[in-house]
Amino acid sequence: MAPTNNSHTNETSSKSSASPAEPKGKRPPVLVDGVTLNGPTLDIREAESFLRDAMPIIMEEAVRKATDVKEKVCEWRSPEQLKEVLDLELRDGGEANPKILQRCRDAIRYSVKTGHPRFFNQLYAGLDPYSLVGRFITEALNPSLYTYEVAPVFILTEEAVLKKMIEIIGWTEGGDGLFSPGGSVSNMYAVNVARYQRCPNVKELGLSAMPRLVMFTSEECHYSVAKAAAFLGIGTKNVYGALPFMVNATAGTTILGAFDPLEEIADICERHSLWMHVDACWGGAALMSNQHRHLLKGIHRADSVAWNPHKMLLAGLQCCAFMVRGQTDILQRCHSANASYLFQQDKFYDISYDTGDKSIQCSRKPDAFKFWLMWKALGTKGLEERVDRALAMARYLAEEIKKREGFRLVMEPEYANVCFWYIPPSLRSTPEGPEFWKRVHAVAPVVKERMMKKGSMLVGYQPHGDKVNFFRQIIISPQVSREDMDFLLDEINTLGKDL
Amino acid sequence: MAPTNNSHTNETSSKSSASPAEPKGKRPPVLVDGVTLNGPTLDIREAESFLRDAMPIIMEEAVRKATDVKEKVCEWRSPEQLKEVLDLELRDGGEANPKILQRCRDAIRYSVKTGHPRFFNQLYAGLDPYSLVGRFITEALNPSLYTYEVAPVFILTEEAVLKKMIEIIGWTEGGDGLFSPGGSVSNMYAVNVARYQRCPNVKELGLSAMPRLVMFTSEECHYSVAKAAAFLGIGTKNVYGALPFMVNATAGTTILGAFDPLEEIADICERHSLWMHVDACWGGAALMSNQHRHLLKGIHRADSVAWNPHKMLLAGLQCCAFMVRGQTDILQRCHSANASYLFQQDKFYDISYDTGDKSIQCSRKPDAFKFWLMWKALGTKGLEERVDRALAMARYLAEEIKKREGFRLVMEPEYANVCFWYIPPSLRSTPEGPEFWKRVHAVAPVVKERMMKKGSMLVGYQPHGDKVNFFRQIIISPQVSREDMDFLLDEINTLGKDL
Repeated sequence: MAPTNNSHTNETSSKSSASPAEPKGKRPPVLVDGVTLNGPTLDIREAESFLRDAMPIIMEEAVRKATDVKEKVCEWRSPEQLKEVLDLELRDGGEANPKILQRCRDAIRYSVKTGHPRFFNQLYAGLDPYSLVGRFITEALNPSLYTYEVAPVFILTEEAVLKKMIEIIGWTEGGDGLFSPGGSVSNMYAVNVARYQRCPNVKELGLSAMPRLVMFTSEECHYSVAKAAAFLGIGTKNVYGALPFMVNATAGTTILGAFDPLEEIADICERHSLWMHVDACWGGAALMSNQHRHLLKGIHRADSVAWNPHKMLLAGLQCCAFMVRGQTDILQRCHSANASYLFQQDKFYDISYDTGDKSIQCSRKPDAFKFWLMWKALGTKGLEERVDRALAMARYLAEEIKKREGFRLVMEPEYANVCFWYIPPSLRSTPEGPEFWKRVHAVAPVVKERMMKKGSMLVGYQPHGDKVNFFRQIIISPQVSREDMDFLLDEINTLGKDL
Repeated sequence: MAPTNNSHTNETSSKSSASPAEPKGKRPPVLVDGVTLNGPTLDIREAESFLRDAMPIIMEEAVRKATDVKEKVCEWRSPEQLKEVLDLELRDGGEANPKILQRCRDAIRYSVKTGHPRFFNQLYAGLDPYSLVGRFITEALNPSLYTYEVAPVFILTEEAVLKKMIEIIGWTEGGDGLFSPGGSVSNMYAVNVARYQRCPNVKELGLSAMPRLVMFTSEECHYSVAKAAAFLGIGTKNVYGALPFMVNATAGTTILGAFDPLEEIADICERHSLWMHVDACWGGAALMSNQHRHLLKGIHRADSVAWNPHKMLLAGLQCCAFMVRGQTDILQRCHSANASYLFQQDKFYDISYDTGDKSIQCSRKPDAFKFWLMWKALGTKGLEERVDRALAMARYLAEEIKKREGFRLVMEPEYANVCFWYIPPSLRSTPEGPEFWKRVHAVAPVVKERMMKKGSMLVGYQPHGDKVNFFRQIIISPQVSREDMDFLLDEINTLGKDL
């Protein structure tokens, strides 16, 4: 370690050139292991200038154009083509800012525009400006929710949002909860808490010391329940006899948008002392609507609920609450590891705000904040109006499907999933035998390929049980208009009428 | 469902007022369930205007000021005080934009500035402008990594980053991997893959059909290993007897920054056919440095590696890779649930790019993209220089601690963790018996309280094993200068010399 001359040595690439340090004074530079240590090597003014150059591109390409119904929803390239366009290889040398900005433009251009009014492909869509600003703030501040000391605002906004969600669920006795990185993880929490409640020794002794545990769910439940059973060591074949410990009820299934009868399930769970978990990741939004919350009647009797505001409420990925009923410390008891370097007991503030040990994660994103900010901006009423409108739009589409030749509903929609077949003219006089259904099965993949290559819209399809491939139209976004519903049906007919 | 008059009805709050729809034509508005469906209810121009108003606030408050060494690193308020300032309650009515912008300012003001040069409290710090732009892009586009069709750019950039990381690890036979929502989850993946490799039936039959499985790790490992054992049904008491299936080696422990001897562990794992997982979440960054990668000598023999670029490489939370060695489909076999609505087999493109079923998640954020963009901008060399500089800075600090009266190293740093006690003048002539250590133990909490209330810096402390409370200084950010190291020691002395 030898001091060198006192000029500011630029020891790194041009990207990280030294800037005057604060405090400057007359201190000689210090060289350690070949590295000059004086002054920061990242010039924040240069960084700001890059950010200022990038923001208009993001605003124009990833916000304005990406939500413009006159633009394409996707710009299809095959993996091979796209690899060539993007020049993905990571090399020893860095690239200059103009090149990086071009890479940003390319990344946006070839990305699917999930905020586009005609993106109907998943259980989320649209863009809410308040949530997006919340996300920009948290990305810039880069907090992690272990402890109050490093994330005070985000600990408190999470608490406020959970409190309100718990109130809306109807748990008058209170509850506890946390945001997780997805509905799948929320469902895993439910399985873990439920078995811990039944067998508290499982945390220390594991399943090998327990009787064979089994859980119940419906065939229509989300695949994350099977993943949870596998991941948590229950085993996928033990999902539905030995020692039952939980029932997973689904409020809003992924494909059909169907709701399990929560009151009846609650009766059975009460009778047999089973943990009742409601996977309301998708259907939970209906709780915001006076008109539609009857779909989840009985949810206040659940022991735990998973609800994803990033779906119909447009809070942006990821925003997933997992909540348990009542005044309980089960999340802490079930998940704690008491890390000394985070959860010191000799802190000077109320350490009940250090919520990190309730989580299976260590670092955790502040996913509640964007939802809180959006909620503040729209109010509960504004959120309710969005849900009511999405469900009214689904109703409209279902009625249009009934009126149009060549379209057929798979079932009356309960929620915002409208499932239907398109029957091309060539098949409309074919008797409905196996051959008919075989040919209908082949229609959706071709229509999907054509819409993707054209970039006109994105809507999902799948086979389901004994039903051949059908379209699943999801309606969420307030940017969607009735005209987009009419367009959807016209476009499917345009793309598929020759089949 | 009755058509009403053909004026655009504004059925929602002012926040979601109707704008002219496209196409307009002469179609009469449609009313369903009391909701008028024509035209979008979210005016994207209004949304853009709000975003344009918010961006300067974010740039000034959450970027420029938040990284300015002359500003406070935190603006401490107790939970009770902060609740009052923030007005957290969520109400029926929405708030006007100026009010929401004020809320943004408040949220930033009272947040801890993790990008500040004097934020040393966790295993991450600093702000990289390229990563931040990557994050803004992905937040605006809001993609999810289930399938190529909805996230082509982000599937390919993840693949490119993993390929390069696997090359850097030294797995010449190749490998597979995915980004997860945190190192804790990556370590859970490791436990799950390891036991699946040993007992493939565990996925279907669960642990109740298996012999008692145990895993080995060191006492110094991250607490997420215990959380994984509990969550996955192994049991925390089976972490180190019956049928061993894996060893967790830590490359860069959380508190001391110590490295397990990977070559020796690999020898033992080979001899006993144990899955060798390396938790390199923190220490993986040393692989980028020719000077320091010897710390992880033998990592190429690991079966799996967890490595978080959001830590020393500044990719921003969350950015966490989990990787398995070799040409293997174990991630798919171990985690797949084959959801028909996402992973259709009759797609028109190469479905090996639909990587979602390798994950325990369904929705998954595109966490590799920001890292890819930053890597493109800085080059491998630029990343190496950052690592070398952080470790040189740690070395400088350790030498300064040895020179200064009242400071004592807990151990020679192996990495970027510099652990030390501060001994106030009043204790310097006290013999080093139990009373001495008891009083030293009380020093760090008080110094921490004082620095937080002053907002001058943030550095962690904890007891560890038989050692009383010591400070743990973490050095990462290129915004940090030697002067900040000197300041750290001066400031601790200023805050604690009266104790």
